[in-house]
Amino acid sequence: MFGQAFDMDFQLNKLVIFGVGLIGGSFALALREAGAVKEIVGVGRTAGNLAEALRLGVIDRVAVDAASAVQDADLVMLAVLVGQMAAVMASISPHLSAQTVVTDAGSTKCDVVALAQQHLSGHLARFVPAHPIAGAERSGAAAASAGLYRGRNVVITPMSEINPSAVRMVRVLWEACGATVREMTPQAHDEVFAAVSHLPHLLAFALVEDIASRSNSEELFSYAAGGFRDFTRIAGSSPEMWRDICLANRAALLKELEIYQAQLDRLHVMLEQADGAALEQVFNHASQARNAWASQKTD
Amino acid sequence: MFGQAFDMDFQLNKLVIFGVGLIGGSFALALREAGAVKEIVGVGRTAGNLAEALRLGVIDRVAVDAASAVQDADLVMLAVLVGQMAAVMASISPHLSAQTVVTDAGSTKCDVVALAQQHLSGHLARFVPAHPIAGAERSGAAAASAGLYRGRNVVITPMSEINPSAVRMVRVLWEACGATVREMTPQAHDEVFAAVSHLPHLLAFALVEDIASRSNSEELFSYAAGGFRDFTRIAGSSPEMWRDICLANRAALLKELEIYQAQLDRLHVMLEQADGAALEQVFNHASQARNAWASQKTD
Repeated sequence: MFGQAFDMDFQLNKLVIFGVGLIGGSFALALREAGAVKEIVGVGRTAGNLAEALRLGVIDRVAVDAASAVQDADLVMLAVLVGQMAAVMASISPHLSAQTVVTDAGSTKCDVVALAQQHLSGHLARFVPAHPIAGAERSGAAAASAGLYRGRNVVITPMSEINPSAVRMVRVLWEACGATVREMTPQAHDEVFAAVSHLPHLLAFALVEDIASRSNSEELFSYAAGGFRDFTRIAGSSPEMWRDICLANRAALLKELEIYQAQLDRLHVMLEQADGAALEQVFNHASQARNAWASQKTD
Repeated sequence: MFGQAFDMDFQLNKLVIFGVGLIGGSFALALREAGAVKEIVGVGRTAGNLAEALRLGVIDRVAVDAASAVQDADLVMLAVLVGQMAAVMASISPHLSAQTVVTDAGSTKCDVVALAQQHLSGHLARFVPAHPIAGAERSGAAAASAGLYRGRNVVITPMSEINPSAVRMVRVLWEACGATVREMTPQAHDEVFAAVSHLPHLLAFALVEDIASRSNSEELFSYAAGGFRDFTRIAGSSPEMWRDICLANRAALLKELEIYQAQLDRLHVMLEQADGAALEQVFNHASQARNAWASQKTD
């Protein structure tokens, strides 16, 4: 049923999305645009957002409870905050058909796998943990777009008991959204994203907090310009979501934070000693690496 | 001769630019577009860049030495790296006419003032230290544009011995470039920019160095996405320029770095204790401050 490449003849009869925000809504829109799904059902906490999702054609209908929502579903996408994941898993678990594949879009994977082992224990062969790498500063169904995942990476972290056809389904659907699917262990995923995503968010929040908590913050902000704008863009992200991510990936994030603190200690010594050669060496290595990376990446 | 607002009847006969890169070249182009200058003379280290500046119409001619360059100049703009400032000041000092106004575009001001006191001691009444706040990731005359300073801040930090007409000239010219001119002491300037510009640069360099120096850096970079791109954009800046800025503003930058390190220590404790409420409070305060700032700023 699912080939390695996306097969346009293939169609899901029923896709259920828990959490019809930027991430879940964009998944829905992209699959609809690809002709990969017949009916999309939305479930969520906020009636207003679900009504907006209906109005915008992101979903076809709203389900009133988890039991009726997942009935006969081909795929259930859990695009809720990590903090709500356990409750949603527990609510759908008794009602899943044997064939229904479940996946998620959480930014951390070890915790989601642990939750699935606890709350979806009868369904682990068809649970495919996944993380689409797409910016999430905006939120809500109104922010969703069919093109969000084009050219992006999606990491899947299947467990040992997984049914290969479930992995293929999730892979093919993300490819239909225009994404590149990469596979790794949940541990490796969480270590990589602690370094390249979670730590930078923590550092940006810390810098803004640093300035915002001073008595002359208004004056300081009035002189901040383009470099500050870009550096702190991710500090505009959802506090609730980032609290959850930091807690969920606490161990790996603490390790990364400590490596970074040691790096700042080294730079502190270089500054104290006015060691221009050492500073220039660090800046030079970093700027070359950054520019080489940026010239390769297009997303 | 110089009113508070820009007077289109006013024209410099001769503007000399030392360092015809992004900053000096954009100043030249903006003044030319405003009809504020008759002749623009360029002086620089790199023959190729000066030839490019001539070809692009950024300057009208190249001067072969500092003495002939500054002869009869109305204004001399020192848009060189901080590390070259002393040598350039010393080379022009004996040849300045009494009426010639000198200004600079350096990112730090206490050090430039100290250099002027040493190397332009006979000309302090007509030296106006200035700092245009404009991104400088790109460089060279080819990157210059007439619109670079539109809507930007330019900070001037005049010394006590300054002739008010020299301040008015520099103010009117920057306003002709579309900038807003703000005045403060060199000390206040350096403290403000240590917080909102120099520290963020140091932090971005540190994060990229952190990742670039690991054995699995290639894998890590391959998963970095939009948030990382924006956070690290300023780490692509000139290593030489940022070495000079860090050394020139060492005291204020060390103070800011230590405040930030204390902030990271606090976040480390919150993570260790899995204190979600405390983390959310910091993230919430920071994201509100950041989004309020971003919605006000347009540059």
